[in-house]
Amino acid sequence: MNTFGRIYRLTSFGESHGPAMGGVIDGMPSGVPIDLDEIQRALDRRRPGASALVTKRAEADRLEILSGLLDGKTLGTPIGFIVRNTDARSADYEQLRDVYRPSHADFTYQMKYGIRDHRGGGRASARETLSRVVAGAFAMQVLKKRGVEIKAYVSQVGNVELRTPYRQLDLSVVDKNEVRCPDSVAASQMKAAIIEARDQGDTLGGRVTCVVSGVRTGLGEPVAGRLDAELAAAMMSIPAAKAFSLGAGIDMASMKGSEAIDPFVVGDYGQVCLEKNHSGGILGGISTGDDIYFDVYFKPVPTLMREVTTLNAAAQAVTIHPHGRHDVCVVPRAVPVVEAMASMVILDAELLARAAL
Amino acid sequence: MNTFGRIYRLTSFGESHGPAMGGVIDGMPSGVPIDLDEIQRALDRRRPGASALVTKRAEADRLEILSGLLDGKTLGTPIGFIVRNTDARSADYEQLRDVYRPSHADFTYQMKYGIRDHRGGGRASARETLSRVVAGAFAMQVLKKRGVEIKAYVSQVGNVELRTPYRQLDLSVVDKNEVRCPDSVAASQMKAAIIEARDQGDTLGGRVTCVVSGVRTGLGEPVAGRLDAELAAAMMSIPAAKAFSLGAGIDMASMKGSEAIDPFVVGDYGQVCLEKNHSGGILGGISTGDDIYFDVYFKPVPTLMREVTTLNAAAQAVTIHPHGRHDVCVVPRAVPVVEAMASMVILDAELLARAAL
Amino acid sequence: MNTFGRIYRLTSFGESHGPAMGGVIDGMPSGVPIDLDEIQRALDRRRPGASALVTKRAEADRLEILSGLLDGKTLGTPIGFIVRNTDARSADYEQLRDVYRPSHADFTYQMKYGIRDHRGGGRASARETLSRVVAGAFAMQVLKKRGVEIKAYVSQVGNVELRTPYRQLDLSVVDKNEVRCPDSVAASQMKAAIIEARDQGDTLGGRVTCVVSGVRTGLGEPVAGRLDAELAAAMMSIPAAKAFSLGAGIDMASMKGSEAIDPFVVGDYGQVCLEKNHSGGILGGISTGDDIYFDVYFKPVPTLMREVTTLNAAAQAVTIHPHGRHDVCVVPRAVPVVEAMASMVILDAELLARAAL
Amino acid sequence: MNTFGRIYRLTSFGESHGPAMGGVIDGMPSGVPIDLDEIQRALDRRRPGASALVTKRAEADRLEILSGLLDGKTLGTPIGFIVRNTDARSADYEQLRDVYRPSHADFTYQMKYGIRDHRGGGRASARETLSRVVAGAFAMQVLKKRGVEIKAYVSQVGNVELRTPYRQLDLSVVDKNEVRCPDSVAASQMKAAIIEARDQGDTLGGRVTCVVSGVRTGLGEPVAGRLDAELAAAMMSIPAAKAFSLGAGIDMASMKGSEAIDPFVVGDYGQVCLEKNHSGGILGGISTGDDIYFDVYFKPVPTLMREVTTLNAAAQAVTIHPHGRHDVCVVPRAVPVVEAMASMVILDAELLARAAL
Repeated sequence: MNTFGRIYRLTSFGESHGPAMGGVIDGMPSGVPIDLDEIQRALDRRRPGASALVTKRAEADRLEILSGLLDGKTLGTPIGFIVRNTDARSADYEQLRDVYRPSHADFTYQMKYGIRDHRGGGRASARETLSRVVAGAFAMQVLKKRGVEIKAYVSQVGNVELRTPYRQLDLSVVDKNEVRCPDSVAASQMKAAIIEARDQGDTLGGRVTCVVSGVRTGLGEPVAGRLDAELAAAMMSIPAAKAFSLGAGIDMASMKGSEAIDPFVVGDYGQVCLEKNHSGGILGGISTGDDIYFDVYFKPVPTLMREVTTLNAAAQAVTIHPHGRHDVCVVPRAVPVVEAMASMVILDAELLARAAL
Repeated sequence: MNTFGRIYRLTSFGESHGPAMGGVIDGMPSGVPIDLDEIQRALDRRRPGASALVTKRAEADRLEILSGLLDGKTLGTPIGFIVRNTDARSADYEQLRDVYRPSHADFTYQMKYGIRDHRGGGRASARETLSRVVAGAFAMQVLKKRGVEIKAYVSQVGNVELRTPYRQLDLSVVDKNEVRCPDSVAASQMKAAIIEARDQGDTLGGRVTCVVSGVRTGLGEPVAGRLDAELAAAMMSIPAAKAFSLGAGIDMASMKGSEAIDPFVVGDYGQVCLEKNHSGGILGGISTGDDIYFDVYFKPVPTLMREVTTLNAAAQAVTIHPHGRHDVCVVPRAVPVVEAMASMVILDAELLARAAL
Repeated sequence: MNTFGRIYRLTSFGESHGPAMGGVIDGMPSGVPIDLDEIQRALDRRRPGASALVTKRAEADRLEILSGLLDGKTLGTPIGFIVRNTDARSADYEQLRDVYRPSHADFTYQMKYGIRDHRGGGRASARETLSRVVAGAFAMQVLKKRGVEIKAYVSQVGNVELRTPYRQLDLSVVDKNEVRCPDSVAASQMKAAIIEARDQGDTLGGRVTCVVSGVRTGLGEPVAGRLDAELAAAMMSIPAAKAFSLGAGIDMASMKGSEAIDPFVVGDYGQVCLEKNHSGGILGGISTGDDIYFDVYFKPVPTLMREVTTLNAAAQAVTIHPHGRHDVCVVPRAVPVVEAMASMVILDAELLARAAL
Repeated sequence: MNTFGRIYRLTSFGESHGPAMGGVIDGMPSGVPIDLDEIQRALDRRRPGASALVTKRAEADRLEILSGLLDGKTLGTPIGFIVRNTDARSADYEQLRDVYRPSHADFTYQMKYGIRDHRGGGRASARETLSRVVAGAFAMQVLKKRGVEIKAYVSQVGNVELRTPYRQLDLSVVDKNEVRCPDSVAASQMKAAIIEARDQGDTLGGRVTCVVSGVRTGLGEPVAGRLDAELAAAMMSIPAAKAFSLGAGIDMASMKGSEAIDPFVVGDYGQVCLEKNHSGGILGGISTGDDIYFDVYFKPVPTLMREVTTLNAAAQAVTIHPHGRHDVCVVPRAVPVVEAMASMVILDAELLARAAL
């Protein structure tokens, strides 16, 4: 299945080395003015080849819109879009035709479908997230008008962890450095760790923290369709994501109730809000109106720049020598993907909440 | 929305203090012999009042099946079921009619719906999970015949953490103690921690680990509908769940690629399998055939046995004196709920995978 | 699958001779005052045994609501309900255990599921429509507040056809006679035809016409989810329905464009409306604001009061002597079912249309 | 909403005068060899400009596949495709920017979305069915391997009706004449009727009959998701469709039960089958294994080649002089669309039925 969402829906397609990636955005509200340059900029943030730290694959990733807009405004009809694959070097993958790269999806795709596109991971390539970034960027333009802001940043790379709470960070500077960490000291350490790993032919994982502010009270559909469950599914669907934690999340398991409890207080505008917001802006699966924040944990890229022994389709041991172009640490490039998935989930919940009236 | 699943679907209903809880299971394969006593036993494991450590609410929780079975076999038609609420003491909740209990869903339900059942949490009560346990127990009977086994246990209560990997534990003894921890030493410490918290009028959270074995290769639908994302959503939809981690999960964020990587090896029966299985049995969103294992983190129950100050519907500070019957630590009772949700997700994925042929 | 609808959803269950019929209504707007007596009256209109012309099965069909209401108002949570089966005489069906009654679903259920409840048609019994009537009656109470009115009537029984356009009929008198035809002359002829068929041990089909007024412009989701397609699916899902025709429908196939065309004119309140409304209130799958009207054609009940030769599970010819209690003409009892399905479809479209904003 | 289907799904996009039409086919079984020339031929059958009787809009309608295939076989991943719009003469539509053409969707789209693409009907143009034809042609290639054949033909144009039952017709000759009627006498009369209407600046509607043979027993999901209801929805979603009738359909409403009843008999291969098949191959919403056949009724094209008075957005009367290029009778071009929709519904039901096992 390749459709995300219930009201605001993205159906995507595309193999990494096929003719194009693309998708259809359905459920877009009508009459919304769209800044296409901003959509392209979102794509550029995810694009490979943008810095010394990321893969050298040089895709232009030019977005082509095929429907759903007239004179710069949304029609309410589906938005079809494509991005051509232009720098696919499929020959690099010829040696992998019958090989199951470790920790990649080669084996499971082969088992599930009995066939797979072995070139660059095919459909399982993280290049697939390009379509999510497009749909997320459209969603973001609607959300902005409704007062919602979504900001993600890298809070961990390997062993380098930024433990400062998001409220004490200046999230406007996230893009000022290559690792997309708003703390310049931590950013330098993260960069150093990435360079060190690269020099060892190794790779690193990490964590992205995301903050959604300005969401109104009442989004999320209990019991199924809880906002926390929708966010978890969206984030865990990102390639390499291994864990999701909402608000104080994991730490709450070791708190006492008296520490964890979230007292209601009267906010600056007379509104009811949470004093500590350990809950991460969601209670009972429904948004409280406070900031929604969460962490997504990513495993290291499993393609090492060293020889690796693995199995082929005949279950024989084979040694592979990677030639493809890969990120040492994909986490900075995951930032716009996390934001995109959050945008899609929040807009979907926002539209669905209206259907209850 | 109150429907889980795509092929194997549970649609549930019920408020904690209403006439009954219940649901409809749709998509059940036909001709499956059902042991109803086993379903009832699953319910009994979740039932309140079953030990000194849990809430005293004394519900019999007798399951009544209304359709879908004939002569002990499934018809393939929907299975309607109910469980009457008999020990609801609604008067205990009269003082809470206009009060927003902290860290409960009172406030968000009121904001979303403009009305709520204030008695015992209404629809937001964890009593809702009863319906999931029924649907999960039905799913489990199908899965067993297909060689799948699902076992969950408590691996953390407050600060007491069981760090032994699941492979070194005897999961057949989980129910031998009240905290549902298979390690007797850790179990004793957990029990002591719960008693201590109870004596302080406090509560504790914790973690449930779940292991799914015997799943065949190929379950899970990339890109949307990945098996990891479905599991994450299912687990995060359990009341009080705050984080989800698959396989080595959170720890993988700080591993190097060379540590995290999951080499393929030839298994005992000649099958391709994972040497370390840090991946938790899922690659690219699709099951590898290895064990699927994951952790679910729960916050402490937010109802303390002490006075708490909060706000009422008029945004005025009020003090509440809890009289309801609540668990000090809900984590042991979450074990059958985690198993039930896992059963539903795995059976759903198993049935859906057949639709691709 | 046993779930109708996208936002306003009914998931139903129940075999004709099982313990109970029932369902879960999900997506109900919150805070709506519900008149439960009116829901029961809707059920009574569908009930067997209500007149000399219909089956003698004497079910009380008392509705029991299990959740979703508090102090007479909807909570926005799912409404669980059941109706017990009390007058099931399963022994009447013992001879049919291995027999495929002609034009019934015995054969297809057996082939699909490998098992079936042979008593009274099991899940395929029209008794299943009881749950639809409940969900439709709830929907109707919401729609009434939004100015929508839905009225159906019998416009054909066997060869007796009422050709008067609905605009020239007084639909308030539909329930004044047993056949639910608002024209007293036609009603008498229909009744006579039914009695004649009964005396011959035969049965009759017919047609129900339904008129939906007060629907606002803009309901329906092109391309999939068109309002006409949703109505067609809803009506064709009623047991024994064989055809659906919207507006001038079938007749439009033989009209010239110049006759069929629907000029826009300015209405009494300055609104844009259709002069002829051959379109039946829907253009491009979206409601125009004019009356939506359509016909549903029903085949005769296939259970004759005479010996019938058919096959059994061993593909041997067998003769069956019907002993069950069946309607001679089910069309009058289909009237509340058609109204219920229309109510569900219109409310669902109304709620979904809000999600686009 | 722009997604058809549950397992085999088409999500389509495109405005008539936008850059391209297209879609994403999801749920395609993997490993199926695809004959792309055959897909293109299906498109060509629907294409405008193909005969003297149809619109002169000269679109090449070249299909471009963007994903989902490797070496001519399906990967099981989504198939993205586009068809460029090349002969759009948008200037022809400038006079219609604020005008509501009668019996078109201009008014309803404007009311629903507050904006619309006025050029050539925008999203409401029948050009949208191009995407359905592509998805149907893919489905057909899977179905053929499973022994299913789907053939549609024109059985009525205006007042010219072909009443011969399909069993007595040679459906292999459908494409031998421009009106796609397998009876050469009726075909000539239909053609004459179309030419006469054209000379009068008028248009004609008609009826398409479709026959699906080789479907196995057991497709269709009662109660919701009945195969007859799915077919009805699919057919009624085709632009200009006004009625749907299954099997003997409309005629069954005036039959007696003793005439309508469908006795089971033993077929040539020992299988249970229907003697008369008035039911149209479906009982209780589930396929019997007999031929599924049905009629779809279409209204005449509402664009006349004469002056027409209508309203504009200010509710003022305006006279329009059509300049666009339109079909006099769209029914022959509806034949491949009906087949495509039938293919999609049958394959979807076939795949879904496997999920029950």
